[in-house]
Amino acid sequence: MADLAGATHREFFAVRTVADTLAGFRPARRTAAERVALEDAHGRVPAEPVRAPHDLPGFARSTVDGYAVRAADTYGASEGLPSYLDVAGAVAMGRAPDVAVGPGRAVTMPTGGVLPDGADAVVMVEHTQEAMPGTIEVVRPAAPGDGTVRADEDARAGDELLPAGRPLRAQDLGVLAAAGLTTVRVLARPRVAILSTGDEVVPPQTPAPAVGQVRDASAVALGALVREAGGEPELRGIVPDDLGALAAALRDAVDTCDVVVVSAGSSVGARDQTAAAVAGLGEPGIWAHGIALRPGKPTLLADCAGVPVIGLPGNPRSALVVFRLVGMPVVRLVGGMTDPPPEPTLRARLERDVPSAAGRLDVVQVAVRDGVAHPLFGASALLSILTAADGYVVVPDEATGLGAGAEVDVTLYH
Amino acid sequence: MADLAGATHREFFAVRTVADTLAGFRPARRTAAERVALEDAHGRVPAEPVRAPHDLPGFARSTVDGYAVRAADTYGASEGLPSYLDVAGAVAMGRAPDVAVGPGRAVTMPTGGVLPDGADAVVMVEHTQEAMPGTIEVVRPAAPGDGTVRADEDARAGDELLPAGRPLRAQDLGVLAAAGLTTVRVLARPRVAILSTGDEVVPPQTPAPAVGQVRDASAVALGALVREAGGEPELRGIVPDDLGALAAALRDAVDTCDVVVVSAGSSVGARDQTAAAVAGLGEPGIWAHGIALRPGKPTLLADCAGVPVIGLPGNPRSALVVFRLVGMPVVRLVGGMTDPPPEPTLRARLERDVPSAAGRLDVVQVAVRDGVAHPLFGASALLSILTAADGYVVVPDEATGLGAGAEVDVTLYH
Repeated sequence: MADLAGATHREFFAVRTVADTLAGFRPARRTAAERVALEDAHGRVPAEPVRAPHDLPGFARSTVDGYAVRAADTYGASEGLPSYLDVAGAVAMGRAPDVAVGPGRAVTMPTGGVLPDGADAVVMVEHTQEAMPGTIEVVRPAAPGDGTVRADEDARAGDELLPAGRPLRAQDLGVLAAAGLTTVRVLARPRVAILSTGDEVVPPQTPAPAVGQVRDASAVALGALVREAGGEPELRGIVPDDLGALAAALRDAVDTCDVVVVSAGSSVGARDQTAAAVAGLGEPGIWAHGIALRPGKPTLLADCAGVPVIGLPGNPRSALVVFRLVGMPVVRLVGGMTDPPPEPTLRARLERDVPSAAGRLDVVQVAVRDGVAHPLFGASALLSILTAADGYVVVPDEATGLGAGAEVDVTLYH
Repeated sequence: MADLAGATHREFFAVRTVADTLAGFRPARRTAAERVALEDAHGRVPAEPVRAPHDLPGFARSTVDGYAVRAADTYGASEGLPSYLDVAGAVAMGRAPDVAVGPGRAVTMPTGGVLPDGADAVVMVEHTQEAMPGTIEVVRPAAPGDGTVRADEDARAGDELLPAGRPLRAQDLGVLAAAGLTTVRVLARPRVAILSTGDEVVPPQTPAPAVGQVRDASAVALGALVREAGGEPELRGIVPDDLGALAAALRDAVDTCDVVVVSAGSSVGARDQTAAAVAGLGEPGIWAHGIALRPGKPTLLADCAGVPVIGLPGNPRSALVVFRLVGMPVVRLVGGMTDPPPEPTLRARLERDVPSAAGRLDVVQVAVRDGVAHPLFGASALLSILTAADGYVVVPDEATGLGAGAEVDVTLYH
């Protein structure tokens, strides 16, 4: 195997730190804007700030059950010396008032009702008593504005209701509904091609792989991470470890998708094929060949006329670590997600020492029990470590490890 | 308005704490199991533990590029005194070896290749030199097992691969694919009926609501939270504030859904209608009428022959707070999610004092900037506070407030 001796001297010619990669690998590709219905907008990214089409709520409302009054009529009111007001009528929910509040008058109000003309406050029913039919005693003074919201208190016409770039949350959909905005312009979900390679890799539905074959575990897992990042995965199947076939599949993916992910074979030979095929796409292209990350060093990042191409290591565990750290931010970027949702984290104490080498970021899988993070060690070919993990701890580039008992931030899987 | 005087003396007859509610309100309803394809299984909840159908990876593999050897042949090897081994052949990726490793022999191995008979370790290529064509020098000793994983190291046939009750994560799909499990039995998504009520409420698509009318902001936002909790929302539209109509809609929802949510009108009258309609469903039923929570006190919880019925306050903001704290756990429970995904949280310093009353849990919306949590105060009718918030802080039942500068855990929206 002539290749193998060469591998001894193999060099990653452009190794980057993870921080460098996140800051510097920013291909220009952005998806186009599209209009979606409110019911389908959860998690989608507004293409521009959303503005209020009119004042919200649109009319002055009561925030309590009680009586609309002129605040001045209640000044000095107390249990001992209440203000007496005549009840001039009632406001019905959902209707414009058919009565105004004159001096010495009150109007019965439900929570959410429209403040009648003449009134500037609503006294809570708990601060009143019925003196006699048609007359109430107010036992506490109200200030102007008490018990009400203004017509434009939620938003004035033209105010920014929601920012661009932040995925729409449940309450954001609520405010869109309140404003009558039943569609919203969002960036399209990035289409992410996932190409699997490796002579040993067979489809998951293979009933009985031959000795030496492994089912493709990476593609479906990467597809799930693409969705978590707001993208739409396209599983392109398993491409033969053949430079021509791989180059053709890559070219097609770059032409038709917004991001291209290659889940490369595990062996040095398969990785070299990927690098050669990417290099063959032309253009300056390759941005990093190797990341100072463990697991995940043999990662390839290229920019193909603005389309990011991400070559991942062959081990599913390494591939998933790299894709979480480096790939998902790229998918979010292409989808315009400038303000991504927060990751769940947990502070925990490290159960035991974790060795690391300086100059490299280490990602350590951990199980968390009762505030203690238990590192899970083992060959990066083992998937069971990832399924047993609750999350991971990052050992920074500059550190040479973390000591038992250290307080660490665990990023939790979800 | 004869009702209103009565409201003065209105009592919540079964006020519960939030802790009591979470521990005690556990209706028996569970969804049925169904089988879904792997591609659709992300976030779904396995109905039972998933077990390995066979050993994984299924054959002993190399984890490095190098040479398969008998470890004993390398004992004592060093740069100064290497072990010399004859290269007897090579293992190709994805194929069964056609050569065995006898004494004094080595076989070229790619990462992921099948360990040949006779070999018990793989020496990394970096620890070898080509002495002459067909012979290598090994310059570091290998122990048995080095550079390999066993045939059953990821899992033995029958081992639990994934637990029941924990939503499937990206890597969990990977292990299912590796095991050839292209479908998985999961609990069906709970069908959650969302009924809107309130004489003032009109559909979001209403182009120009009359004075006094408000568009239904709660239903679409609640639908999004239902999805976040793993459920399938069914927006049943706006039911008139009429006891007969509400009772009929409730009965139909209880008969056809797994969870029923009523987004009640804001006024006391509308809330009373909901309570009466729920009480009219028969059975002992009502479990809580009021929760020691602000905002969100006027919440109704009932168990209708195992189907949870959740009556929410009319203000969208109160409704969303209650549904996050109390409703989402119920949806997860019904969907068998015994091990729900973690919420993102952040430690921050409180910018200013937050008053609260003892005996009640307060939920305070906050914007977080540079590690400082800024409380957002205002009428609970205002939605803009929720859209401006990055998350919320809980003031516990026993506290009478939190002081400026206090360290707080912010639960972040996503």
